[in-house]
Amino acid sequence: MILRIDRLQTELPPPSDPDPVGASAVQELLGGKFGEMSTFMNYTYQSFNFRNRQGARPFYDLLASIAAEEFGHIELVTTAINTMLTGAADGKPGEAGDLSGVKGTRNTQQFIAGGAGAMVQDSMGKPWNGDYVFSSGDLLEDLTHNFFLETGARNNKLKVYEMVDHPAARALTGYLLVRGGVHQVAYARAIEKLTGADLMKMFPSPRIPTEKIPECQPHIKRCEHLKLYRFSPDDFQEIAAVFNGPHPETGEDLEIAEEVQPEGAPPFDLPPQPAVFAPGPEPEEIAKIAAKLRKAAGLPKEPTGVVANNGKGVAGKVKDAVS
Amino acid sequence: MILRIDRLQTELPPPSDPDPVGASAVQELLGGKFGEMSTFMNYTYQSFNFRNRQGARPFYDLLASIAAEEFGHIELVTTAINTMLTGAADGKPGEAGDLSGVKGTRNTQQFIAGGAGAMVQDSMGKPWNGDYVFSSGDLLEDLTHNFFLETGARNNKLKVYEMVDHPAARALTGYLLVRGGVHQVAYARAIEKLTGADLMKMFPSPRIPTEKIPECQPHIKRCEHLKLYRFSPDDFQEIAAVFNGPHPETGEDLEIAEEVQPEGAPPFDLPPQPAVFAPGPEPEEIAKIAAKLRKAAGLPKEPTGVVANNGKGVAGKVKDAVS
Amino acid sequence: MILRIDRLQTELPPPSDPDPVGASAVQELLGGKFGEMSTFMNYTYQSFNFRNRQGARPFYDLLASIAAEEFGHIELVTTAINTMLTGAADGKPGEAGDLSGVKGTRNTQQFIAGGAGAMVQDSMGKPWNGDYVFSSGDLLEDLTHNFFLETGARNNKLKVYEMVDHPAARALTGYLLVRGGVHQVAYARAIEKLTGADLMKMFPSPRIPTEKIPECQPHIKRCEHLKLYRFSPDDFQEIAAVFNGPHPETGEDLEIAEEVQPEGAPPFDLPPQPAVFAPGPEPEEIAKIAAKLRKAAGLPKEPTGVVANNGKGVAGKVKDAVS
Amino acid sequence: MILRIDRLQTELPPPSDPDPVGASAVQELLGGKFGEMSTFMNYTYQSFNFRNRQGARPFYDLLASIAAEEFGHIELVTTAINTMLTGAADGKPGEAGDLSGVKGTRNTQQFIAGGAGAMVQDSMGKPWNGDYVFSSGDLLEDLTHNFFLETGARNNKLKVYEMVDHPAARALTGYLLVRGGVHQVAYARAIEKLTGADLMKMFPSPRIPTEKIPECQPHIKRCEHLKLYRFSPDDFQEIAAVFNGPHPETGEDLEIAEEVQPEGAPPFDLPPQPAVFAPGPEPEEIAKIAAKLRKAAGLPKEPTGVVANNGKGVAGKVKDAVS
Amino acid sequence: MILRIDRLQTELPPPSDPDPVGASAVQELLGGKFGEMSTFMNYTYQSFNFRNRQGARPFYDLLASIAAEEFGHIELVTTAINTMLTGAADGKPGEAGDLSGVKGTRNTQQFIAGGAGAMVQDSMGKPWNGDYVFSSGDLLEDLTHNFFLETGARNNKLKVYEMVDHPAARALTGYLLVRGGVHQVAYARAIEKLTGADLMKMFPSPRIPTEKIPECQPHIKRCEHLKLYRFSPDDFQEIAAVFNGPHPETGEDLEIAEEVQPEGAPPFDLPPQPAVFAPGPEPEEIAKIAAKLRKAAGLPKEPTGVVANNGKGVAGKVKDAVS
Amino acid sequence: MILRIDRLQTELPPPSDPDPVGASAVQELLGGKFGEMSTFMNYTYQSFNFRNRQGARPFYDLLASIAAEEFGHIELVTTAINTMLTGAADGKPGEAGDLSGVKGTRNTQQFIAGGAGAMVQDSMGKPWNGDYVFSSGDLLEDLTHNFFLETGARNNKLKVYEMVDHPAARALTGYLLVRGGVHQVAYARAIEKLTGADLMKMFPSPRIPTEKIPECQPHIKRCEHLKLYRFSPDDFQEIAAVFNGPHPETGEDLEIAEEVQPEGAPPFDLPPQPAVFAPGPEPEEIAKIAAKLRKAAGLPKEPTGVVANNGKGVAGKVKDAVS
Repeated sequence: MILRIDRLQTELPPPSDPDPVGASAVQELLGGKFGEMSTFMNYTYQSFNFRNRQGARPFYDLLASIAAEEFGHIELVTTAINTMLTGAADGKPGEAGDLSGVKGTRNTQQFIAGGAGAMVQDSMGKPWNGDYVFSSGDLLEDLTHNFFLETGARNNKLKVYEMVDHPAARALTGYLLVRGGVHQVAYARAIEKLTGADLMKMFPSPRIPTEKIPECQPHIKRCEHLKLYRFSPDDFQEIAAVFNGPHPETGEDLEIAEEVQPEGAPPFDLPPQPAVFAPGPEPEEIAKIAAKLRKAAGLPKEPTGVVANNGKGVAGKVKDAVS
Repeated sequence: MILRIDRLQTELPPPSDPDPVGASAVQELLGGKFGEMSTFMNYTYQSFNFRNRQGARPFYDLLASIAAEEFGHIELVTTAINTMLTGAADGKPGEAGDLSGVKGTRNTQQFIAGGAGAMVQDSMGKPWNGDYVFSSGDLLEDLTHNFFLETGARNNKLKVYEMVDHPAARALTGYLLVRGGVHQVAYARAIEKLTGADLMKMFPSPRIPTEKIPECQPHIKRCEHLKLYRFSPDDFQEIAAVFNGPHPETGEDLEIAEEVQPEGAPPFDLPPQPAVFAPGPEPEEIAKIAAKLRKAAGLPKEPTGVVANNGKGVAGKVKDAVS
Repeated sequence: MILRIDRLQTELPPPSDPDPVGASAVQELLGGKFGEMSTFMNYTYQSFNFRNRQGARPFYDLLASIAAEEFGHIELVTTAINTMLTGAADGKPGEAGDLSGVKGTRNTQQFIAGGAGAMVQDSMGKPWNGDYVFSSGDLLEDLTHNFFLETGARNNKLKVYEMVDHPAARALTGYLLVRGGVHQVAYARAIEKLTGADLMKMFPSPRIPTEKIPECQPHIKRCEHLKLYRFSPDDFQEIAAVFNGPHPETGEDLEIAEEVQPEGAPPFDLPPQPAVFAPGPEPEEIAKIAAKLRKAAGLPKEPTGVVANNGKGVAGKVKDAVS
Repeated sequence: MILRIDRLQTELPPPSDPDPVGASAVQELLGGKFGEMSTFMNYTYQSFNFRNRQGARPFYDLLASIAAEEFGHIELVTTAINTMLTGAADGKPGEAGDLSGVKGTRNTQQFIAGGAGAMVQDSMGKPWNGDYVFSSGDLLEDLTHNFFLETGARNNKLKVYEMVDHPAARALTGYLLVRGGVHQVAYARAIEKLTGADLMKMFPSPRIPTEKIPECQPHIKRCEHLKLYRFSPDDFQEIAAVFNGPHPETGEDLEIAEEVQPEGAPPFDLPPQPAVFAPGPEPEEIAKIAAKLRKAAGLPKEPTGVVANNGKGVAGKVKDAVS
Repeated sequence: MILRIDRLQTELPPPSDPDPVGASAVQELLGGKFGEMSTFMNYTYQSFNFRNRQGARPFYDLLASIAAEEFGHIELVTTAINTMLTGAADGKPGEAGDLSGVKGTRNTQQFIAGGAGAMVQDSMGKPWNGDYVFSSGDLLEDLTHNFFLETGARNNKLKVYEMVDHPAARALTGYLLVRGGVHQVAYARAIEKLTGADLMKMFPSPRIPTEKIPECQPHIKRCEHLKLYRFSPDDFQEIAAVFNGPHPETGEDLEIAEEVQPEGAPPFDLPPQPAVFAPGPEPEEIAKIAAKLRKAAGLPKEPTGVVANNGKGVAGKVKDAVS
Repeated sequence: MILRIDRLQTELPPPSDPDPVGASAVQELLGGKFGEMSTFMNYTYQSFNFRNRQGARPFYDLLASIAAEEFGHIELVTTAINTMLTGAADGKPGEAGDLSGVKGTRNTQQFIAGGAGAMVQDSMGKPWNGDYVFSSGDLLEDLTHNFFLETGARNNKLKVYEMVDHPAARALTGYLLVRGGVHQVAYARAIEKLTGADLMKMFPSPRIPTEKIPECQPHIKRCEHLKLYRFSPDDFQEIAAVFNGPHPETGEDLEIAEEVQPEGAPPFDLPPQPAVFAPGPEPEEIAKIAAKLRKAAGLPKEPTGVVANNGKGVAGKVKDAVS
C-alpha cells in the first residue's frame, strides 16, 4: 500500500502564457507508450507479480522503490500540462465563444472532456492502455525491458524538450531527464549484476549527454543524477546491493539517498477556469460550502493544505500573462 | 508523491488449489471498466487535475486520500490472482507439455505473456485503458461519476464473489466490498454536502446488504465499514468535513481512523514457477547472486524484507494442495 | 426520427435449456464486423450523410428503409442471446457459488457486466466500433460496400447456424438469412441500376441456397425472401424504382410489401435472474413500486405492455427446461 | 422494431460558411463517450436486455421511449456536422489542390474516408465503441448510470456550445441541451420513484441554468423542457407513471406530450460535393438514372421526398456564403 | 518466403520543401483501413490461408503475386512520407526550440516517436490493426472483398491527390492509382471467371478516369495500367488464366509482364535529421564505425548499396529548398 | 520491393489430429506483441525509415535482410495454425451442427470469420496493431528495442512450446527458436559494434539453452543457429560487417550463408473444409472452372504449383487421423 504526500517531487514554474498546443504534445510524456504512466505501471505490476521475492530481494526492492518514484512523475507531467492549459479557457461559464480560442487546438478533449486538464492519453489523443505493461515474471527479461523503456522515455523527453518552449515543459523535462537517467542506469546495473554483461558503454542513450541540457543543470548540481531514494518509511533497504559503482557518464559514485524521498515542493493551487466548469461554474459557491463544512467539523478556519501560492494566488498573474 | 509500504491492506489466504479459470474472471476486478485500476486512476487524476484546491479543500482531501487507498486495492487484486495461479504452471522450464494443463484456460496470456501473473486486463483479456478515467474538473460531476463508479464496482465484486469459489477470491471480494462500500458512502455524502440532495436511500446499491456476505463479517466487526483513513503522514486532514454523519445502512457514525493507514499484513512470498520462468528458469541462481550482492553491500545475510511466510515457505503447502 | 413498435419482427422460441457458450458465439452476429450493429449503423449513417437526396431519391429511400429494418435485427439477435442466457444464472443474489456454473463460459461479461444479457461485442468479446461503418458519400461505392457487407454477414450467419444448436439461435439465423438475402439482392440490384453491371450470377454467395436451410423455409413460404418493406408511415416510396425484377435464385418477382412493416410478434417477457440482479436482487419489490406508480398515475391495474407470455410466464417453463 | 420518419426533430439552419474545424469538435457530441451514440445505444440495449418487463413496465417504457428519441439526436448531430462541412470541399473531382483547404483540418477522415460527412468518431477521431454501453440489467444501477451519462452529456454540450460559433452548432446544442435536460430529469425522477432518494437538488448539473442559453429559449417557450414523447404509435403508455411532478429548476409540471413525436422539420437536401465524390463525381448522371428508374416504376416525375429546400436549393446560398 | 530487392517500384522525387501536415494526410494511404498495409496484409493472409491451392491454382497465384507487389506499395508510401518530412526537423540534437516548428503538426508522433519518419497509422494517428484483414477462406467472398477494398483504396488515393500538393505525394498517388487500378480489374475479372457475373461496367469506380490524372500519364504510357507482374522467380505462372481480356476502360488487352518485376528505381538516401536523432544525434560517428566494420570484414571501402543520390547527396538540395 | 518464392523456410508436418484450442494459443506467435507480425513489421519499417543508409550501410543491410526472413516466419506460423485447424470443421456446408464441435473453442473467429484459418490476432483474439512497431529512427535505440523484442519473442515461443503438444506447433517452435536466436545474437552484436558494450553474457535469455529443446536439434545440426541469409538476389552484402565473431552460447563462428535463402520445403496443399466454405461450399466446382481457365490460357493441364503432397493429397490422412 501507499501513503501520499501532497508535494511535488520538484518545483515547477507557475502558470504564465497558456500553451494548449504544447500541452497536447506533452501528453506523450504522460500517456504515450514511453510516458510516465508506462514507467509507473510497468514497475508497479512487475513488483506485484514478483515471485520468490526473498530470494531476489535486492531486485524486488529496486523495482518497488522506482515504481513509487514514478507516481511522482505522473503527478509532475499532469501538473505541467495543467499549468500550460491555465488561462486558455478564460471566460464565463455557458457563454458562446468562450472556448473559441481552443477550437483548433490539437487535444480538444482537454477542454471538452476535461476542465482545462490533462487526459490519460498520448500526444495524438489515444488513451494509455494496459498493453503497454510488460511483466513477464522473468527478472532478467523484465530488466531488459525496463532498460529499453527508459531509453525510449529519454528519447521522447528530449524531443518534447526540443519541441515545446513553455517554461513548465522545460522545467518538467529538465527534471525528468535527470531522474529517468538514474533509472536507466539502475536497470543497466541490475542486468550487469545478474549476468555480468557490461552495458555501461551504451550510455548516454540517445547519445546526448544530460549535462548538455541547461534545465538539467540545477538537478545535477544537487546530485540528483546519482541518487536513488527508497520512497518507503521502512522497506526496500536492499536497493544498495544493486545500485552502486560509478556513474557511466561522469564516473561519480552512485549512492542511496539518506532521505526517504526528495523534499520537493508544494504544488501551485491552480486557479479556477469557470468557462470549463473547473471546479464548477461557480467556484465561490463551492468555497462557501467548504468553509461551512470545515467549521462544522471543528477544523481551522483557513484551509489546512499547503500550496505554493498560499494567500497570494496565481490567478492574477495568469490574467496578466494572457492579456 | 507517494511512499510505499510493503504490506497488503488486508490478509489474503496462501496459495492452495490453483484456479486459473477463476483467476481470469477476477481480472475483471483489476482491469475492467469498474475494476480497481479504474477507481485508482480516476481519483488520482481527479486530484491531480483539481483546480482551486484551497477553496474546496475538504473535497480535494477526500479524493486524494481515497485515491491512495485504491493503490492498495490494485495490489490486493493482483495478489489474489497470482495466488490463484500458483501451482498451475508446475513443471520444469523448457519441457514440452509443462503448460498443457492451461492450454485451454480463459486467459492464456497470464502464462504466455506473464509468469503465472496478473495482466492489466479485464475478464475478457482486453487491456484497461485511459478512456475509463473521467476527470471533468467539475467537482459535482466528478463526484456523481465516482458514486456511479463505486456502484458499478460493487456490482462486479458481488458477481465475482458469486462466480469464483477460490479462497483468495472470496477473501478478496469480502474485503473490497466493505471498503468499496465506504467509498460509495463517501461520494454520496460529498454530493449531499455540496447540493443538499439526499442519496442515502439509494443504499445498498445493488440492493444486497454487505453484512449478508459472510466474508465481509470480519471486516465489519473491525468497523472497517465506517472508517476512512487519510493515507498520508500529514496531509488530507479535512476529510472529516465531508465524511461524517450516520451510515446509510446501519445508522452507526462514520468516522476518520486515528491511524494513518490500516495495519494490514505482510504479503506471502509466492513461490517460483520455473515452467514460466518466474523469476527465471533457475530461481536458485538468482538467489545466489542476490546473496552475493547483499554481502558485498554490507547488508544482513538474511533478506531484510518481511513476508508472511518468512522461514516457512508456501511452496510446500502449494505442492500438497495441488497434488 | 423514428417511432418504436414494441414487437419483434419475427417470433423466436421461449427460453429452454440455457446455452451461454452458444450465446457467446451468437454475439458475432450482433457486435462483429459483419454483425447487425454493422448493417444497422452503416445504412443509417449512409442515409444521414447522403447528399443530393432529391436527385438520387430511389437510392436514398432504399438505404433509409433497409436501415430501419436493421434496428429490428439488432433487437432480434439481442433477444436470442438473452433467451439463451436465461436460466444460466439461477440462484439467489449475493450467494457464493451461484454463478460458478458460468465461471468458464466464453463471455463472462454477459454475467459480470450484464445481467445474463447481451453485450455490444463480437464472439471474442471485442466491442463493436465506429470503424466498422463505411460511409464514403459516393453512392456507387457505398452500395459496393453494402453488397460486400451483406455477403460477409450471410457467411457469418451460416456458420453460426452450423455451430450453435440452441433453438433460439436456429430460429434467429433462419430468419436473418432470409431477410439478409433480400438486402443482398437489393444492393446488387441498385448497383445494376446505377451502372448496368450484372451481379446476379454472384448469387447465392456464399454458394449455399437459402432454401436449403430448413429454418428458412417458413419465411420463404411467406415470401419474405422477395419483399422489401418501407418501414415508414409515409416516406421511402421510391424503393420500388430500384427493388424490382426477378429474384436471382428463384426467378420470382421481387416486390414491395403492402404493409409498412412485418406484423411480427410480441416479445417474451424474459424472467428475472436475481443472481445477476436483473432487474434487481429483489424483482418483486420493483414490481410493487411499479404497481403503486401505475395506480397513482391513473393507469390500468395490469401492465399495458403486450408480451408473448402475458399472464402465463416463461419462468416456469424455463425451470422445467433446465432441470 | 422501428418505423422511420424522414424529418428532423427540430429545424437546423441551412449551410452557410463552412467550418470543418468546428465540425471536428462537434463530433464529440456524436461519437464521444458522452455523445448521442452513447445515449441512443445505452437506452436501446438496456431496453432490449430488460428482464421482467411487465413487473417493471413504467421503467421499461421510459427507457424504450427515450431510446427512440435518441435516434433523432444522432440524426441531428450528423446533420449539423454535414451542414458545417458543406462548401469546404468545393471544386472538381480528381483535380489536384481541390482539397488543399482542408489538408490541415482536425478530422481529415471527414473528407478522405467520408464525403464531407460525419464519422462515427469523437472529437479526436477515435471511433465510438460498444464499451461505452452500460447495461447491467440492474434497473437501479442502469438508471444511476443514465443520470450520470446525461450529466456528462450536458457538460459536453455546454462546452461545444462555448467552443463552436457556427449557426448549426449553436442551434444544435440549444435544442439538445433542452431535450437532454428532460432526460436527465426523467432518470433522476425514476431513481426517486424506485428508492425515495431525492436528487432534485442536483439540478442543474453542471450548475448552469438551461434558460441562460439564448439558443435554448425558443424550445423552452414551446415547453420542450417539460415534455416527454412516447415515440411509438401504441406502446410505452406507462411513462406517465414515472415522469411527473414539478421540474426541479422551474417548478412547472412535467407532462407527457399528446403527440406521439415532435412535429419537427424536413431536412435540408444538402448539395453535392463533387470534389469528394458525394454522391459521386458526376451527381447529375445519378440524377438522370434516378429519373429514369422513377419513370419505369410508375412513380411521379418529381421526387416524392420532402426536403426543406424543395425546388429552391441551398447550393446557391452556400456558394454565396463561402465566397 | 520472400527475397527483397533494394529498389523502389517507381521513382519518387527527392526531398524539397518539407510538408509535415501533408505527410500526416498521406498516412491514410499507409495505415488507413484502405491503405497499403491493408492491401498487402489482406492478400498475403488470404494466400497463406488458401485451401485446395492446386484445385484453384490460378486464383491462388493471382492473390500471391498481387500480395507481393503490395509490399512495394507500403515501401513507396513510407518513402513519400519520409521525403515530405525531410527538412522539417532541422537543427541540432538536444537544443530547445529545434522542433518548435512542428509542435502544431497533425501527427506529432512522426517526430516524437519516429525520427521524422512514417508511423504505422492512418491520417488521424490511429494504428493499423489486424481487424482490417478479411480472410474468410471462401474464394468468391475474398475476391468480392478485394474488389471492394481496391475501390475504397482508389477513392482514398484520389482524395489524397486532391488534398496534398507536395511533389512526392503527387508522384506517389499517380503511380498507385495506376497500379491499384490494375488490381481492381484483376479482382473483378477473377469474380467474372468464377461466376460469370459481369462487373466491367462498374469501372472506373469512383467514376473518374485514371487517364484524367496528369501524374498517371507517364505510367499509362508505359502500359503499367495493363500489366500484371508475377513478382516471383519461378512461381505464380497461372495468373495468365485469370488476368486477360480487354481493359474495362480502354479496351486494350490485359497482359502478363515478361519481366518478373518492374525495373523500378534506387531509393534516395534520405539525409540525417540530427534533431530527431535519425540515425542518431551524431550520424558521422555511426558512419565512422560503419567504415571500420566494413574494412574489418574485407568489404569495399565505399558502401555497396545503390541509392539514387550516390556521391551526390540530397541534403544540400533540401537545405536550399527549405531556406 | 520483394519477390515471393512459394516455399516454406522449413518443413512442417502434415495435418493430423486437429487441435483448435492449441491453434488459439499459437496465435500469440503470429499476432501477439512479440509475435512474428511484430518482428516482420518492426524491422521492415525500421529499414524503410532508415536515414543516411550509405553512412550506416552494414546496419541497414542487417535490418533489411532480417526483415525479409521474418516474412517467412509469419508464413510458417500461419501454416502451423492452419494445419492444426484442418479437420476441426469437417462436415457439409450449411448443415446444422457441423461446427458444434468448435462452439467452445477459444478462438471462434478462426471458424466464423475465417475458414478454419489463422487470424491476425494474438492468443486472446486481440488484433495485432501498428502500436507494436517501434521505429525511432535512432539506430542504437532501434537495435536496443530489437534485442528486447527478440528476447520477448523467445520467451513466448518457449512457453507455447511447453503449452501446445500438436506436432505442427512443436516443429514450428523448434525452428523459430533457432532462427529467432540468430536474430537475437545479431542485434546484440550490432549494439556491441556500435557502442563497445558487451551483451554476450545475457545469452541465453530466457536462460534456457536452445540446444536443450529436442525440436531444435535438427536445425542446430544444419548450423541454422549460426547463419544469417541475405534474402536478396544482390543486395545486403554488408551484413557480414556486423554479423561475425563467436556465438555467445557455443563459441562457434557466426557466418553468412552462401545461399541467398534457405532451401526450405514446398507447402502442403491443405484440404478443403467445406463446412466453413474454404475455398467454397463446393470446392470441386472451383476446380472445374480453374481447369477450364488453365486450358483457355494455354497452360499445362496439371496445376503448375509445387506442393508437398502433389498427387497424393493429405485429405485422406486427415480423415484417418481424426476418426
